[in-house]
Amino acid sequence: MKIGLDVGGTKTDAVAVDAGGTIIGRVRLATGWGPEAVTGTVLAAVRALGADAGVDVTAIDSVGIGIPGQVEPGTARVVHAVNLGVDELDLAAAVGPVLGVPVRAENDVKAAAFGAYALHGGSGSMAYLNLGTGIAAGVVSDGKLWRGARGTAGEVGHISVDPGGPLCRCGQRGCIEAFAGGGAIAERWNRPGSLPIRDVFDAADEGDGFARELRSGLARGVAAAVRVLVLTADVDTVVLGGGVTALGARLMADVGAELAASAEASPFMRSLHLEERVELLPAGSPAAALGAALIGAARDPEGVLAHG
Amino acid sequence: MKIGLDVGGTKTDAVAVDAGGTIIGRVRLATGWGPEAVTGTVLAAVRALGADAGVDVTAIDSVGIGIPGQVEPGTARVVHAVNLGVDELDLAAAVGPVLGVPVRAENDVKAAAFGAYALHGGSGSMAYLNLGTGIAAGVVSDGKLWRGARGTAGEVGHISVDPGGPLCRCGQRGCIEAFAGGGAIAERWNRPGSLPIRDVFDAADEGDGFARELRSGLARGVAAAVRVLVLTADVDTVVLGGGVTALGARLMADVGAELAASAEASPFMRSLHLEERVELLPAGSPAAALGAALIGAARDPEGVLAHG
Repeated sequence: MKIGLDVGGTKTDAVAVDAGGTIIGRVRLATGWGPEAVTGTVLAAVRALGADAGVDVTAIDSVGIGIPGQVEPGTARVVHAVNLGVDELDLAAAVGPVLGVPVRAENDVKAAAFGAYALHGGSGSMAYLNLGTGIAAGVVSDGKLWRGARGTAGEVGHISVDPGGPLCRCGQRGCIEAFAGGGAIAERWNRPGSLPIRDVFDAADEGDGFARELRSGLARGVAAAVRVLVLTADVDTVVLGGGVTALGARLMADVGAELAASAEASPFMRSLHLEERVELLPAGSPAAALGAALIGAARDPEGVLAHG
Repeated sequence: MKIGLDVGGTKTDAVAVDAGGTIIGRVRLATGWGPEAVTGTVLAAVRALGADAGVDVTAIDSVGIGIPGQVEPGTARVVHAVNLGVDELDLAAAVGPVLGVPVRAENDVKAAAFGAYALHGGSGSMAYLNLGTGIAAGVVSDGKLWRGARGTAGEVGHISVDPGGPLCRCGQRGCIEAFAGGGAIAERWNRPGSLPIRDVFDAADEGDGFARELRSGLARGVAAAVRVLVLTADVDTVVLGGGVTALGARLMADVGAELAASAEASPFMRSLHLEERVELLPAGSPAAALGAALIGAARDPEGVLAHG
């Protein structure tokens, strides 16, 4: 049995997966802040799978951990997980001796891509486009995660699509993330409220001009990312996930309209059938935790995970 | 021994490659127009390798053909090779019986990518960015060509990077190809001359405002394509080739300045070291013909050529 964890900025999702790939237990708990608390969260999640989900935790063969930071391939060494207060943490050293099984980590977007691919049937090619505070994608083809040469594979958020667009935190203008990143939109909106993107959508519906601009920028950025992924990696499907996709059908309608407009203008874009190739990861999907479990259990990480 | 041909719009480059991968003979001849003439060109090129380059054409094991059109993977069935006057042509059926060896074709940019990768040492990851009439790229990683799901892998030319940019022949505005495609620049320049891109560079040097605009758009488009390839596929190296690269150091200086400007503006872009990762395919490089030879000789095209 393999365990997979998706350690998010606020919550940690943990699943137990049997030999056939079926999720046999799942728990969610709050994520701690800082290296020690994150380590504690991982151990607590595994314990909770036993205590709360009835998983036989003596039968664990491997643990895989998806985490929002950079991970050295094939290891559990995490750096720059800034949303977790972690500058550097070797999760294998921190939790391996306690759990007594191999521990491997992976960047959370890449883990989600791998899990979404498995949930989608595990064949062909797919990009998972994460719409959260920032924007990044993971590409999986023929069961292999595209890792790239230097750790920037899927960093489509920092492709500029408009030299006159908003300034991105990266220093460029008109990055996809400056248009469509949840963080960038919330910062530009800059009004009180715990769900700023939903507030922008609501205000746009009520006719607020600035909200309309932000909302159309979001659709424009997501559509641009979809085009980049299909025109560069030619993935069959682009699956949208991440916090911003909580807007569900409202977001999909906007993105679909944006893709339809470019198909209307361009026979070439029309031939790509982009609208049909974009899907939404269902709310509450265990994709990231499942992907982490599969990556953690891979016998030959270098074989499973192509290096781009 | 394997034969590789790069059937271009005006010239065909043919090489003979020994078992160790070394080019042991090379000829170039004019390409015919239309399916029959293209077939004749292929046969004439193989004969010329024997007659003019001293290659023992009785010892040929395979023929691979790079051609500017769409090719069904693992076959020699070419469609829409418009620059050759070919709507549809099965090169295996047309020349296989005469040559008596397996014949396989590949899109010319993908063949060039595969050959450039081999010439570059055959390890790591590389994108070959072809700057010709149009703009397209081929990505090779760990010895595998990224083919994609539906034949649009590497079609970075039709990613829009400026909604206020020039109209592209594809119908969109501000496509990379609308800025940097040799055809688009020549059309916008629209003055007599057999080397329009060189004329634009010369006129820009002489202070012509419109030429300066076109020339800076070319650098901007190429730099955008490099960023897209590194931020999506995270290739180690981007190799520039194709007719427009005849401008050599003048083009590279412009592209380098454009990449340096974005590195100046953005610490993130600076961390990518893009300037150091862009290279120019040497003038007269046999990359495309060599790549065609290697693809033609691959025992398991489905294994060698990843399907994205």
